[in-house]
Amino acid sequence: MSIPAALEALSSLLKDRLVRSKSDLDLHGRSETHFAPCPPDAVAYPQTTEEVAALMRICTEQGCPVVGWGAGTSLEAQALAIRGGVVVDFARMNKVLEIRPEDMDCTVQPGITREALNVDLRATGLFFPVDPGANASIGGMAMTRASGTTAVRYGTMRDNVLGLEAVLADGRVIRTGTRARKSSAGYDLTGLLVGSEGTLGLITELTLRLQGQPEAVSSGVCAFDRIEDAVAAVMETIQMGIPMARIEFVDAAAAAAFNAYAGDTLPECPHLMIEFHGSDAGVAEQARRFGEIADEHNGKGFRWSSLEEDRRALWAMRHNGYYAILASKRGAQALVTDICVPISRLAQAVEETRADIAASIIPGPILGHVGDGNFHAILLVDPERPEELDEAKRLSHRMVERALTLGGTATGEHGVGVGKLDYMAREHGQAWDVMGEIKRALDPQGILNPGKLVRGN
Amino acid sequence: MSIPAALEALSSLLKDRLVRSKSDLDLHGRSETHFAPCPPDAVAYPQTTEEVAALMRICTEQGCPVVGWGAGTSLEAQALAIRGGVVVDFARMNKVLEIRPEDMDCTVQPGITREALNVDLRATGLFFPVDPGANASIGGMAMTRASGTTAVRYGTMRDNVLGLEAVLADGRVIRTGTRARKSSAGYDLTGLLVGSEGTLGLITELTLRLQGQPEAVSSGVCAFDRIEDAVAAVMETIQMGIPMARIEFVDAAAAAAFNAYAGDTLPECPHLMIEFHGSDAGVAEQARRFGEIADEHNGKGFRWSSLEEDRRALWAMRHNGYYAILASKRGAQALVTDICVPISRLAQAVEETRADIAASIIPGPILGHVGDGNFHAILLVDPERPEELDEAKRLSHRMVERALTLGGTATGEHGVGVGKLDYMAREHGQAWDVMGEIKRALDPQGILNPGKLVRGN
Repeated sequence: MSIPAALEALSSLLKDRLVRSKSDLDLHGRSETHFAPCPPDAVAYPQTTEEVAALMRICTEQGCPVVGWGAGTSLEAQALAIRGGVVVDFARMNKVLEIRPEDMDCTVQPGITREALNVDLRATGLFFPVDPGANASIGGMAMTRASGTTAVRYGTMRDNVLGLEAVLADGRVIRTGTRARKSSAGYDLTGLLVGSEGTLGLITELTLRLQGQPEAVSSGVCAFDRIEDAVAAVMETIQMGIPMARIEFVDAAAAAAFNAYAGDTLPECPHLMIEFHGSDAGVAEQARRFGEIADEHNGKGFRWSSLEEDRRALWAMRHNGYYAILASKRGAQALVTDICVPISRLAQAVEETRADIAASIIPGPILGHVGDGNFHAILLVDPERPEELDEAKRLSHRMVERALTLGGTATGEHGVGVGKLDYMAREHGQAWDVMGEIKRALDPQGILNPGKLVRGN
Repeated sequence: MSIPAALEALSSLLKDRLVRSKSDLDLHGRSETHFAPCPPDAVAYPQTTEEVAALMRICTEQGCPVVGWGAGTSLEAQALAIRGGVVVDFARMNKVLEIRPEDMDCTVQPGITREALNVDLRATGLFFPVDPGANASIGGMAMTRASGTTAVRYGTMRDNVLGLEAVLADGRVIRTGTRARKSSAGYDLTGLLVGSEGTLGLITELTLRLQGQPEAVSSGVCAFDRIEDAVAAVMETIQMGIPMARIEFVDAAAAAAFNAYAGDTLPECPHLMIEFHGSDAGVAEQARRFGEIADEHNGKGFRWSSLEEDRRALWAMRHNGYYAILASKRGAQALVTDICVPISRLAQAVEETRADIAASIIPGPILGHVGDGNFHAILLVDPERPEELDEAKRLSHRMVERALTLGGTATGEHGVGVGKLDYMAREHGQAWDVMGEIKRALDPQGILNPGKLVRGN
């Protein structure tokens, strides 16, 4: 029982689709953030579910770790093979298998990226709404329970995956869920696999809920002197039932970075960026009502538009936000934090975080999906100065402690991976043990993404 | 190790809150539908989580079955102690523990009913939207993953429970979820427990998502000659992104029953009943646009109103639908079926079901939550004539087979219990085995609601 024996058998199975070249191993040993590189022993490129099942049987027989890989955009090192073994790259399982416009759903393979899927959907008048920013793979987004700017309206991956096909540790292929919109037929295994970060099985197929492209879209931006006013405006908008498609917060430091990067002229203070989806009359009314609410909470200079060029400019600013912030410190690497709190605690959490960063030796502009109570500080560190990474980790640690104290979670949308593992015991208490019991029931040898998500894995 | 030994210990624990009177046993041995009565050995009325945990430790030690009981309104015999043991009635754990209007959530004990909760919420401007018709307990609704008329807008219990406290088979008390609106911190244990029908643990506390009471509500009703036209109108309304709060289908037989029961004057043909929640201008626009879509699909006589008295009359008709249908056959009992299919298959599923019932010896008006693809035939049987119950079971069986063939589920919202157990292998395949493996990991002795939901339980 050994990794070399597994690789030999996998090589017979996959031929030249089991790759051990240094370049490929290096590529699959890197994460997008600050984690140390950690190349796997091999990279597999399966083409079918049957190949994934055969691969899994070999790896179980030989006790070889198996780690899934989508687009490599995860932020907590979820896809790094920290105990060696084989990385399963789904690049060749990236097809749209079926689109059913009348049911507003589709079935895809895990390797397709969300942007590629939305290109394929364009002619149908439908779109897949979950938007984490990065052009992640759909399988990876499911595995980390990703969300992003549109979750306030359309939900997270939890809400948008109707069913799955998955290969378990022992090579069994299961199907979860149906194409019905709802069901009360037993345990929600779809929901259990979504967010499991490859520790319970590998997803080989997903059925996704789609949305109709809105007839009209309006977007706007509004400045605030104080973070708590911006948050209060969002709370009131939600309570009034005004359906926001996106509602994003940027702090003064982020606004400054946007200005420097793209020549924008935002006042350097906190802002809300908002978008509405609906009918022409609907989005106009919603923007108008939001404007009134923003006014009541000392919002300044709210302007909105339904013109596509204006909208594109606004969201390009937000979507490029990460790169704008990265560019604001020469040669910097980012540690991207991710906490989520009850919305009543959001202003406090953002304000305390901002003060903490202001008192530190590094910059860290803040962006947030404020409708969900979720925000990120983009902590910028000089890779040549290890004390800056230490400082970033200290700030991130304090953010998580703050989130848990305020009734929130250590990770709103980036997942656990390696980076948040140490907080699971505190966040979940004995429920974390239960996660481990489920893990051991389904993967008794612990070959699936070892070292991640559950205790003693 | 025995049930009598367990009852003795439970009696010491709970004193007069462990009840063994014939009347109480009989009351907790009945279901609302056709299942044979099955009284438990005792009924426990715990008052605290600690008591539930102590009860569970005793029952594990003695191998005594434990079955949860909310309001006793489940439709598939979920709460019947079919292997004897103790029924845990949550009637004394029925408090609202905290309402947090600014976060639009609340924390409640499982025994509170949804109507009682909504009375408590009234002054806050918020409401709990899941509406299965019956005045079920919130704990029971979570355990069966209930939904009902509003799921098309607000989702099912899966979407509206943010977190839980639960007591596991070994007496451990776990907390799942946080008060943050989203999280990607590990396995979704909240989602695993919701819909688990008391086979993994007993829920002792729930944190629920609330909604703002809409500023305006409009309701309408529209007749159609053909079921497929009604369904096509619904599909187009969904595709246009017009946010319906309820969209209910009733067939000609149901319309006739409503007329006979309440003196309504509906034409005896299929109908849609619809409701919109939003701003004054919004609900008026939505009703108008729905009217245009209904017109295109040969809808007749669409009328709508935002006046509360008109709305109440319309929904009283739908809410009393079950009783109106029951009254349409003297002395009848009902077998209530429950399937859910992809919406593109809904017209076919309803039409084939209607034809099947028309060719049978019993009546069975059809009601449906058509926005979800979910519908019920209320099969009316004379309890004195066993051949009618047999016929109803045959019709229900054929409905389930039809749903599964069409890519749907054996149960949209009533759950598995005893009535749908035989379909789980076909619906889930090997995924049903996985449910059993999770069950055995968390309840190795199988004391929690034995005989339900998973194989060999």
